[in-house]
Amino acid sequence: MKIAQIAPLCEAVPPRLYGGTERVVAHLSDALVDAGHAVTLFAAADADTRAVLVPVRDRAIRLDPAPLKSELAAHLSMLHEVHARADEFDVLHFHLDLLHYPVFADCAPRTLTTLHGRLDLDDLPGVYRRWPQFPLVSISQRQRAPLPDANWLGTVHHGLPLELYPLTPRPRGGYLAFLGRASPEKGLARAIAIARRAGLPLRIAAKVDDVDRAYFHDTIAPLLGGPGVEFIGEIDDTGKAAFLGEALALLFPIDWPEPFGLVMIEAMACGTPVIAWNRGAVPELLEDGVCGRIVASEAEAVAAIGEVIALDRATIRAVFERRFSAAAMAQGYLALYWRILDAQRHDLRLHA
Amino acid sequence: MKIAQIAPLCEAVPPRLYGGTERVVAHLSDALVDAGHAVTLFAAADADTRAVLVPVRDRAIRLDPAPLKSELAAHLSMLHEVHARADEFDVLHFHLDLLHYPVFADCAPRTLTTLHGRLDLDDLPGVYRRWPQFPLVSISQRQRAPLPDANWLGTVHHGLPLELYPLTPRPRGGYLAFLGRASPEKGLARAIAIARRAGLPLRIAAKVDDVDRAYFHDTIAPLLGGPGVEFIGEIDDTGKAAFLGEALALLFPIDWPEPFGLVMIEAMACGTPVIAWNRGAVPELLEDGVCGRIVASEAEAVAAIGEVIALDRATIRAVFERRFSAAAMAQGYLALYWRILDAQRHDLRLHA
Repeated sequence: MKIAQIAPLCEAVPPRLYGGTERVVAHLSDALVDAGHAVTLFAAADADTRAVLVPVRDRAIRLDPAPLKSELAAHLSMLHEVHARADEFDVLHFHLDLLHYPVFADCAPRTLTTLHGRLDLDDLPGVYRRWPQFPLVSISQRQRAPLPDANWLGTVHHGLPLELYPLTPRPRGGYLAFLGRASPEKGLARAIAIARRAGLPLRIAAKVDDVDRAYFHDTIAPLLGGPGVEFIGEIDDTGKAAFLGEALALLFPIDWPEPFGLVMIEAMACGTPVIAWNRGAVPELLEDGVCGRIVASEAEAVAAIGEVIALDRATIRAVFERRFSAAAMAQGYLALYWRILDAQRHDLRLHA
Repeated sequence: MKIAQIAPLCEAVPPRLYGGTERVVAHLSDALVDAGHAVTLFAAADADTRAVLVPVRDRAIRLDPAPLKSELAAHLSMLHEVHARADEFDVLHFHLDLLHYPVFADCAPRTLTTLHGRLDLDDLPGVYRRWPQFPLVSISQRQRAPLPDANWLGTVHHGLPLELYPLTPRPRGGYLAFLGRASPEKGLARAIAIARRAGLPLRIAAKVDDVDRAYFHDTIAPLLGGPGVEFIGEIDDTGKAAFLGEALALLFPIDWPEPFGLVMIEAMACGTPVIAWNRGAVPELLEDGVCGRIVASEAEAVAAIGEVIALDRATIRAVFERRFSAAAMAQGYLALYWRILDAQRHDLRLHA
């Protein structure tokens, strides 16, 4: 099958450091190539891919030191290029959320759109009422809740290459891990409180976005002075394998309806159990009592630590391999691509 | 003529406090109504207009206390509505920079796009190469410099209603004024330095955007402690008439190629002279030695203060009335609307 993958231009594909969507597009593109398909990736030139790369910007926007850039302009230019070549592909798979709807209204049935973000924004229902013709993929069932009547074709969970984060059978770090953005919704302050109450060290690998600087300065920085809390900033994939693998457990104390939570399956790949709040896609992704514990309070989280440390890390890894491999993700998407092709052939309107 | 004005949804039309583009759209729409035309304004519901308002969002995004919003989704929904009604209008006048190009590619010759921002962003040439069919208006000749070969139809300077900021013949404030965003490119630190060297009080009416909080905290806040510098935050139009009118002079020490600089003509409306840096559209808008002085250093700015205080404020007001009235702006745009209509009738491609 001839498949176009259209990635955001914000981070490299895959990102060198933090970043979710571009990471998923990278793994999906490679896994589709491995499955024997002709994949063309529209992305920034610093992509690292086994697909045929169409570089539509010299480098990813966040890595570009040029001070004067336009995310919107860069993405519109890319969409213009994709549209000019649309007939070369059986399926066009978009990872840009909304922006392509006006450009591809004329060939929507041949597109697939994975929505990577939260969907409970006030302005979204109006868009999906006005552009109902685009087949959509959710990254968890839970993600759909705010837009139950959108044109959902399926749910495909994210996946990772099996070799990216190997199992660490016996972690030696003796610490709890936090990995994510240093933002209120990711629950970093809560993670620090849990580690303090448990008397265990916490290591924090976090990105501080511009919008989160005030939160970091006012709320997090004062908590970092005490003993047992170490802030190590953003890390790359190599660092991540050791960081997650050597941890006793990952803390995922989110305070928002996160539609997936890639770091949970990264931890699971290492065999590292996860202590997660019962929000968003957590109950859908984390097998409670097998791969970690789902909790509702700091006290429950502290109480769960001993329990999750005792879980069998090889079993966690096995669950990861079965449910969250890049190959499984690619098979999930291929099933949807075939439905799109069949519907085109039979001129059918798709229904989930 | 049946004219659609399509405003950004970020601020109210006009903005209650700081904000440029929505202010210009408000004044233009009213002036076109006054000139006898049928004007339909697509904007947020909190607009205050004499045009027929099509409210496409309950309230302007920046004023909306809802935490979960999508600027992109809101604007795409608006564009979908405008497109559905496009045939009702002779001309569609967009103030959204880029976003409408994919939606209106099929009726570009019947549109006019005023570019309100700086054009020296790396990603813009690619967009204007790919969507060359949209007739463009610059808000100053200088603004065009980074995109000289774009499809420019004309330049129309911004204008204000004559009654909005009345002439203050004899200001009693005894201070220098700064009005704008508290950002490096607006030159607030330079304004403080000039006032200190001149031994005159400085009053600052400034908006602090989220992206500028670190700059404000690190660079500006330490300068506010000393004597003679007063920070009063954002002000509304009533406050602005007094703030600018009672000032000895406005300081406009910008450090970027600002494409217009609305506050300069607001000051001129009050008869208040302007001391401005020789950047962007300043030499095009400010008559040196008549409405203020154009300078290149803090020393020149300090030296210019006595000179501009001696300028005739009624003459400054007269220049404003002649060049920068809302009626003059409306006539400038009407001339372009007629060219678009004529070209449609004769099926001609427009050239500037």
